[in-house]
Amino acid sequence: MRACVLTIGNEILKGKTVNTNAAEIGRMLYFSGYEIFRGLTVPDIDEEIGEAFRSLVGVCNVIVSSGGLGPTFDDITIPSFAKAFGIPLVLDEETYEEIRRKTEAREMKMTKEREKMAMVPEGSKIIKNDIGSAPGIEYQIGQTRIFILPGVPAEMRSMLDRIRNEIALKDSFYYEDSVAIRGVYEASLAPYVNDLMLKYNGTVYIKSHPAIVPETRESELEVEVSARSERLETSRTLVTEVLKEIVKIAAELKGNRGNRKVDQK
Amino acid sequence: MRACVLTIGNEILKGKTVNTNAAEIGRMLYFSGYEIFRGLTVPDIDEEIGEAFRSLVGVCNVIVSSGGLGPTFDDITIPSFAKAFGIPLVLDEETYEEIRRKTEAREMKMTKEREKMAMVPEGSKIIKNDIGSAPGIEYQIGQTRIFILPGVPAEMRSMLDRIRNEIALKDSFYYEDSVAIRGVYEASLAPYVNDLMLKYNGTVYIKSHPAIVPETRESELEVEVSARSERLETSRTLVTEVLKEIVKIAAELKGNRGNRKVDQK
Repeated sequence: MRACVLTIGNEILKGKTVNTNAAEIGRMLYFSGYEIFRGLTVPDIDEEIGEAFRSLVGVCNVIVSSGGLGPTFDDITIPSFAKAFGIPLVLDEETYEEIRRKTEAREMKMTKEREKMAMVPEGSKIIKNDIGSAPGIEYQIGQTRIFILPGVPAEMRSMLDRIRNEIALKDSFYYEDSVAIRGVYEASLAPYVNDLMLKYNGTVYIKSHPAIVPETRESELEVEVSARSERLETSRTLVTEVLKEIVKIAAELKGNRGNRKVDQK
Repeated sequence: MRACVLTIGNEILKGKTVNTNAAEIGRMLYFSGYEIFRGLTVPDIDEEIGEAFRSLVGVCNVIVSSGGLGPTFDDITIPSFAKAFGIPLVLDEETYEEIRRKTEAREMKMTKEREKMAMVPEGSKIIKNDIGSAPGIEYQIGQTRIFILPGVPAEMRSMLDRIRNEIALKDSFYYEDSVAIRGVYEASLAPYVNDLMLKYNGTVYIKSHPAIVPETRESELEVEVSARSERLETSRTLVTEVLKEIVKIAAELKGNRGNRKVDQK
């Protein structure tokens, strides 16, 4: 099952805000069993937001968007989404009442901008906002479930928690573990990683991340192994087995400076 | 002039790595005078990488990509890009020699994986890698300039510095400044922001970011004003002028709890 993450906002594109929301959403979806197929960030422009949703519907089973739900002029995710698919906007009475209650509790009055946050695409399921004002939206188009969440990280996170159980796949268990290896170059290990992945026939995924250990300036290689299967135990066993093989290979490479396979490759 | 940022890698999509590279590239391009039109992240899959480049060429004047240039099996950005546009890969002698030199200095021998990093699309301009092994690539397709950079942040950053001057637009000066306001809600300020942007006829851009001050739990609103024009002085003057108006409006709002305009809106 494919999931896509859509983040909306000029501040992300121009690098003022580092896109931690996309990482959090991706992590949640990945651990819920989805393959993350695409990450897309678009500016606060009506047509671009609409086009982004249109381009992802059909290629993804689940879309989670974040950003553009607040009261300001450039918070236009909901109307842009609705317009792109020809869905009328309607006032959600319950949300309106809640915003009104919160507003009056602060001894302030409703404005057009506050009212806007209660306008939702007809047929939406509302995702309550426990922290701020603007609600999230769930909407189904064909086979694609769309979740439209706010960009304020705390609000986004609390809604992710709300939908997590509901969208988790029940037949896909992911397990990952990693090992840190010193004194072996990524390029030296690479041919063995290729062989291992072939040997396991695509059931495990191996990824190496080179890094420098700050204290010693020694180079370190983080090798991460992951597997996904229908049973958690199966995934775990596969990962543990492959990690052991990697540790063994690394020890041999350290013994002969990584040249063991040079003549064969 | 439109710029797009393409980041490549499963680790970004699944949220293991927060996409700071996209933020750094976006910031550099934005301050160099470009409008950042799209941010796209795709997995380490041949067709997806190719399709990503194809979808951005034509809509962007500049594309900067990051990721997938190393020695491992899933570092496939260069061959995927070349395949997508039917460009043959050729061995870059100078790069090959440099990689060979570095490899032998570590008393190791060349492998297929190390050689791979010297294969570049025919007609590329090489961007030297001062830190690691894999070079970056500059390639022109029609009106679009494409920069293919590595994903290791230090390597990516050093190449960004190399290309910065070359791609900066000479007739577009950006200036931004911000003010922090306490005791005024975003939704209360929103109608005034709309009015100000209309008054300045689109020459300035105003964006508010709500936040909580950790020490006092007081809510704070960061209001950021930016302008882009053909002279830096003009941009600066516009921004300063608008910031002054915002501070004045905020002071008035604090005086009467944000309700001044309620009856008019």
